[in-house]
Amino acid sequence: MKPATVPKRIEGVLAPVITPFRRDLSPDPDRFVKHCRWLMKSGCAGLAVFGTNSEANSMAVEEKLELLEALIRGGVPAATLMPGTGHCALTDSVKMTREAVRMGCGGVLMLPPFYYKGVSDEGLFRNFSEVIERTGDERLRLYLYHIPPVSNVAITLDLIERLLTRYPGIVAGAKDSSGDWANTKAMLDRFKDRGFDVFPGSEVFLLDGLRAGAKGCITATGNVNPGPISEVYKSWNTGKAEALQAGITATRKIMQKVPMIPALKAVTAHFANDPGWKTVRPPLTELTPEQEKQVIGELKAAGFSMPGIF
Amino acid sequence: MKPATVPKRIEGVLAPVITPFRRDLSPDPDRFVKHCRWLMKSGCAGLAVFGTNSEANSMAVEEKLELLEALIRGGVPAATLMPGTGHCALTDSVKMTREAVRMGCGGVLMLPPFYYKGVSDEGLFRNFSEVIERTGDERLRLYLYHIPPVSNVAITLDLIERLLTRYPGIVAGAKDSSGDWANTKAMLDRFKDRGFDVFPGSEVFLLDGLRAGAKGCITATGNVNPGPISEVYKSWNTGKAEALQAGITATRKIMQKVPMIPALKAVTAHFANDPGWKTVRPPLTELTPEQEKQVIGELKAAGFSMPGIF
Repeated sequence: MKPATVPKRIEGVLAPVITPFRRDLSPDPDRFVKHCRWLMKSGCAGLAVFGTNSEANSMAVEEKLELLEALIRGGVPAATLMPGTGHCALTDSVKMTREAVRMGCGGVLMLPPFYYKGVSDEGLFRNFSEVIERTGDERLRLYLYHIPPVSNVAITLDLIERLLTRYPGIVAGAKDSSGDWANTKAMLDRFKDRGFDVFPGSEVFLLDGLRAGAKGCITATGNVNPGPISEVYKSWNTGKAEALQAGITATRKIMQKVPMIPALKAVTAHFANDPGWKTVRPPLTELTPEQEKQVIGELKAAGFSMPGIF
Repeated sequence: MKPATVPKRIEGVLAPVITPFRRDLSPDPDRFVKHCRWLMKSGCAGLAVFGTNSEANSMAVEEKLELLEALIRGGVPAATLMPGTGHCALTDSVKMTREAVRMGCGGVLMLPPFYYKGVSDEGLFRNFSEVIERTGDERLRLYLYHIPPVSNVAITLDLIERLLTRYPGIVAGAKDSSGDWANTKAMLDRFKDRGFDVFPGSEVFLLDGLRAGAKGCITATGNVNPGPISEVYKSWNTGKAEALQAGITATRKIMQKVPMIPALKAVTAHFANDPGWKTVRPPLTELTPEQEKQVIGELKAAGFSMPGIF
């Protein structure tokens, strides 16, 4: 293990950054860096690049590493980055995790291998354990990514217990995108004194989460609404918290009426006046013109904007 | 598109070849080539390397390409190979498909991108279409891999219709691992005069399949029981077909009592007298000693053997 120079842990609101693609579907580092800089300027404490909303699994490891390099070269501090590095293939997860740590990333957000279903906690423990051991760097801060509605492979509390016991300090927390507050609360309660930082996967649970000990949230709509979401984070123990939470929940509900990833891209395209943002990689498809009109219309009617994006 | 020199289409029994790993979990080309040669000698018409049973998604693209090269260098004719080349990432699928065609493989067996769930036929059409267009080689024979119990993303009959209409000759067939005979039958009936070769994903449906127009089967247990399964294929329109089918179904049922992939490896390890075969990559785990004892005991009691494997 290399000697550790460990940056402060990321706390606050993180966006799982949408990935811009050119017309030929290649990733576009220029648009990517520009969007990331806007997010950091607009209230995000960190960037969970290469998450579900980033279409990360639709990209090869090399494509993601090129974007990560461009981002750091473009001035976004590595310590604020929590790239997704979990793949189905152990060797892909190791390669990407190792590179992320080498570049100084504040953490990595790791999916379980998600092809095989019904796998055991023992098999998942071995997967994460192999990645940690092969990365072999005490600077690694591993956040487990629990998103059973998409991955169909769960990270159970017992698995977290085992990993945290074996790798304290390295296993740093989790993003809970189960959409099940009871699970988030159980995670917070069980590991509250263990240096395990929990981030709900939606701002809908931000205020409840912070009151129960969460360190922030990692949320899709952080891509378009980072300012107001960050305000809830900053004001959670003040009298205006409930009203602010109600505002961001209302925005979320408008977004959720249509498919989230193309919606984030369509909204960004509209407010940045840059139609190129709408492109998604297969198997996703863009919003229909009707869906686009609906979501942008409702957002505008609610007074939504993306200050400084243009 | 390059001028086409198209090998005869693969028909018969194909094994989705199990992948041997060394103790450090790296793929072992020597054991792999040896096993593949045994399979071809023992009745297999072709090898669906890098399928679900191959733990293909637990390997990086480069690891699979190295195994594929070793196999062809080791004397297995490329025209008999139908490697799995479908990944979540479009660019990975393109890379692997292109290489497989360049090496002269008889076909490729392609999973849909399987991270995002609930995607549209339009999104899946675009995925396969991009892979075909970017491969840009008329020698490509693409077999669609329908395995909803694992991928959780289905290849519908309407999607097949659309792909077959747009890419006749290139879209060559499907492996149906739905486990649902009604779906296999519907696939056979709907595309029977369209040059679309259907392979049930289990030998349990082999005889019924052949009677309904299937071209063979691609089955897990083809790894350990290729001779008897091939006998059903050869004898399907004779008086002994039913009895032979009953025999291979009985063997399948013994195997299915325990997790299939580690069972295939444990059985191979036992009959080849090579314990190294038992190693699986996470997230899978080996059989427990009890499971191993059970499956091997029942197979032996049923008179099962792997002639020539040792």
